[in-house]
Amino acid sequence: MDDGGRVLATQRDDHGVKSVAQGGYPAELAALRHQFGHLPAIAAGMVGSSLGWQDAGYVGAPAELATLAGALTRIEGADFAIVPGVSLAEGHRADVMRGEEVQVLGANLAGLAPRTAIYCQPGTHTKWITVEDGRLTDFTTMMTGEIFALLRDHSILAEMMRGAVADGPLFREGLLRATSAQSILSELFGVRAAVLLGRLSRDDAAAMLSGLLIGSDVVARQIADETIYILADPALGSLYAAAVETLGGHATLIDSHAAFVAGIHHIWELQR
Amino acid sequence: MDDGGRVLATQRDDHGVKSVAQGGYPAELAALRHQFGHLPAIAAGMVGSSLGWQDAGYVGAPAELATLAGALTRIEGADFAIVPGVSLAEGHRADVMRGEEVQVLGANLAGLAPRTAIYCQPGTHTKWITVEDGRLTDFTTMMTGEIFALLRDHSILAEMMRGAVADGPLFREGLLRATSAQSILSELFGVRAAVLLGRLSRDDAAAMLSGLLIGSDVVARQIADETIYILADPALGSLYAAAVETLGGHATLIDSHAAFVAGIHHIWELQR
Repeated sequence: MDDGGRVLATQRDDHGVKSVAQGGYPAELAALRHQFGHLPAIAAGMVGSSLGWQDAGYVGAPAELATLAGALTRIEGADFAIVPGVSLAEGHRADVMRGEEVQVLGANLAGLAPRTAIYCQPGTHTKWITVEDGRLTDFTTMMTGEIFALLRDHSILAEMMRGAVADGPLFREGLLRATSAQSILSELFGVRAAVLLGRLSRDDAAAMLSGLLIGSDVVARQIADETIYILADPALGSLYAAAVETLGGHATLIDSHAAFVAGIHHIWELQR
Repeated sequence: MDDGGRVLATQRDDHGVKSVAQGGYPAELAALRHQFGHLPAIAAGMVGSSLGWQDAGYVGAPAELATLAGALTRIEGADFAIVPGVSLAEGHRADVMRGEEVQVLGANLAGLAPRTAIYCQPGTHTKWITVEDGRLTDFTTMMTGEIFALLRDHSILAEMMRGAVADGPLFREGLLRATSAQSILSELFGVRAAVLLGRLSRDDAAAMLSGLLIGSDVVARQIADETIYILADPALGSLYAAAVETLGGHATLIDSHAAFVAGIHHIWELQR
């Protein structure tokens, strides 16, 4: 980025916390600098976890961009800073995030959503985040994507999960069943039984299961007549948007890249 | 067994459907006959699934012991019969069982529970079964044990799941949280966050998670003031009994071996 926050070059790769060995981060940064020149650098997300370059800790919610900028972890000699995550500890509730805080506070700053808004960031660990006037005040993490992946890769349902997942009649049926289900634990086995009894095509099981899990995730929220601002890639974003609309809310997809850029640039400005 | 249903010898092994290759069943039976003599044989459970010796099909609920005895699959030349499973297909609900039907109808016949009773058979796929006057009328399968195993073996929680699971304060806390939780999907991640934030000992995470899942399973039932007849090994049976009692029901552990013997002997008598 230039000093004004304009993006001069973007690069995406899959060198995430699961694929970079501990101790491998300085070499990753060196490779980026070899490509783009020796610029100061700032990062957010799992690079700041105990599995990443260095544990950057958490700041407690409520948090704003200035809170994050005031708690950066600086890596000596590397001209590199890591943004802390945000934690929540309130009564019985405990939750953490890393990286999503920069996106939602950036979206808020850039006006991509109203000053007070509910965000949803679907993924392995889906985040539901409330931002009020520039402050991240509350959030909940749902293990939706990870449970789907566990069922697809390792469960008794695995052999039935080779079909594509897309918005369609079976995904919608899964959404609706999730709203009336006694328990997701019985609905999951019901998908298997329906295939064994010839009541559900094997090719449709994955879409049904996705609908059940995403429906179970969304229905746990109070979303009636609320607008939910969704930050996700288009495929997963559209599934969550369908779920939100089906369950009585309104969904707006926002540009997660623009949101992150706005947030991280503002943190950079604040810490200079 | 002798003709009167008295057990003369019992043998347990771990040669289940996951460990016996398809095509390996005749050799398994031959090995048993080498040991016990060439007796007629009858079996129930996953040996009658499409992954077992031969698919023995299902009879629809409601089913009684005579229904099962009238639908045996006989393996030609092997002097061997397999009891069918029971299926349920009602509106949107689909469910199947194999093996549990012999246990609960046997328990009913042997007077191990009242003529009309609710049974719980905890396990990888926990069954909740209603028997009314000797007829298995309704049932629901919960994927409780399998989800626990997936989380323990393959999830982001795996590294925190090495502690023992037993009835105790943390298991009980998990049970209670399950009753008030918005969603089990958020509670699961909450266990990880609580460990990361130092609010829960790493050694206690497995017990808490077990309480959350078993609590989520039991609370989906209407068990207030009901007596639940539990068929399980003592360790898992005592966890479910604690859950039932904590959530307002009464639990009675019954002898699953005696129940199976009574059921399978009666089927044998009926088909002679």
